[in-house]
Amino acid sequence: MDYYGSSIGRLIGSLKSLPGIGEKSAQRLAFHIISMPEEEVKSIADSLVEARRSVHFCKYCGTLTDDEVCPICLSAEKGRRNKRQIMVVENSRDLAAYEKTGRYDGVYHVLGGAISPMLGIGPNDIRLKELILRLEDGDGKCCVDEVIIATNSTVEGESTAMYIVRLIRTLELPVKITRIASGVPVGGDIENVDEVTLERALKGRTEL
Amino acid sequence: MDYYGSSIGRLIGSLKSLPGIGEKSAQRLAFHIISMPEEEVKSIADSLVEARRSVHFCKYCGTLTDDEVCPICLSAEKGRRNKRQIMVVENSRDLAAYEKTGRYDGVYHVLGGAISPMLGIGPNDIRLKELILRLEDGDGKCCVDEVIIATNSTVEGESTAMYIVRLIRTLELPVKITRIASGVPVGGDIENVDEVTLERALKGRTEL
Repeated sequence: MDYYGSSIGRLIGSLKSLPGIGEKSAQRLAFHIISMPEEEVKSIADSLVEARRSVHFCKYCGTLTDDEVCPICLSAEKGRRNKRQIMVVENSRDLAAYEKTGRYDGVYHVLGGAISPMLGIGPNDIRLKELILRLEDGDGKCCVDEVIIATNSTVEGESTAMYIVRLIRTLELPVKITRIASGVPVGGDIENVDEVTLERALKGRTEL
Repeated sequence: MDYYGSSIGRLIGSLKSLPGIGEKSAQRLAFHIISMPEEEVKSIADSLVEARRSVHFCKYCGTLTDDEVCPICLSAEKGRRNKRQIMVVENSRDLAAYEKTGRYDGVYHVLGGAISPMLGIGPNDIRLKELILRLEDGDGKCCVDEVIIATNSTVEGESTAMYIVRLIRTLELPVKITRIASGVPVGGDIENVDEVTLERALKGRTEL
């Protein structure tokens, strides 16, 4: 990379260290960056450092946020979202995906992963204890109406879902537990959908 | 993006402003960045600002570099590369591509684009005058043996190549002018190569 001079080489190296950015993309990005106005570059650089510095896990749901409490939990505190409905997701990106639908007004619980014996992630490595604590109020009664399990539709996600169901049932918490539907994606061609998904779609059929 | 908190939202926004990075990639990168050690993030941020700040055009060949003279021209000054052979390329990325082959030991001339009436780029908008100045020594004699034209094999690149040939011929500079070969890419299937390229490959055939 010597032929670019060291600072451009270093920039390309930095960019290449990020996931999904290869040599060519790093080069393209680097040349774009050095052609940008200096203040804009400064602003991008600041946003990196600032995001890294200010990131916290929400003390209620565990999502990544700037403050002690995330905007969603804050808005639930103010009564603008339904605190009695908790959607359990694997990570903050899944939360964001659901928020984008604009159709969910409950709160979330971010596990920070899924149970995976393959990767050595057990039930104690994800935020399950915190989930149970949120379900119980001080008197051992349940302060939540529904737990919607929205872990991924992968082996790990499904095992995690099953584990949560068993955990809540063992503790005899009187809470409704639901799982998001599996099936044919909207706009998807049935002929291109795998058999397992089709079987799920059939099993989960609803009456019209 | 409110559901992430403002600093993560701002980071995603920053990343999305870069070419080839969409919403999903920006999100993925942002989450990766906030999970990195703080010093690493700082180092990436610094490399952005530093590259932008320290970038210069080499006073000889016009490529992007940290100093007044790029490492390639510097090494030609020291007699380690052949100053009498100039490869004309459109931009610094093309220079880098040729440098990677490790098979060229002449110097370069970076035009900073190609003539394109469509985009309103005329001969005066690219570094052609600078090229001519490099070909002539003070006494109106030519101080270069060969000009290798390595502009892209596009309409703009070809027109630029033709323009350079005519310019040098008009000035009656006694310099050899060559054009890099067009043809079937190495490892390419002939059946997948377009007709124009095949025609070129035929025209440019060499005796074995």
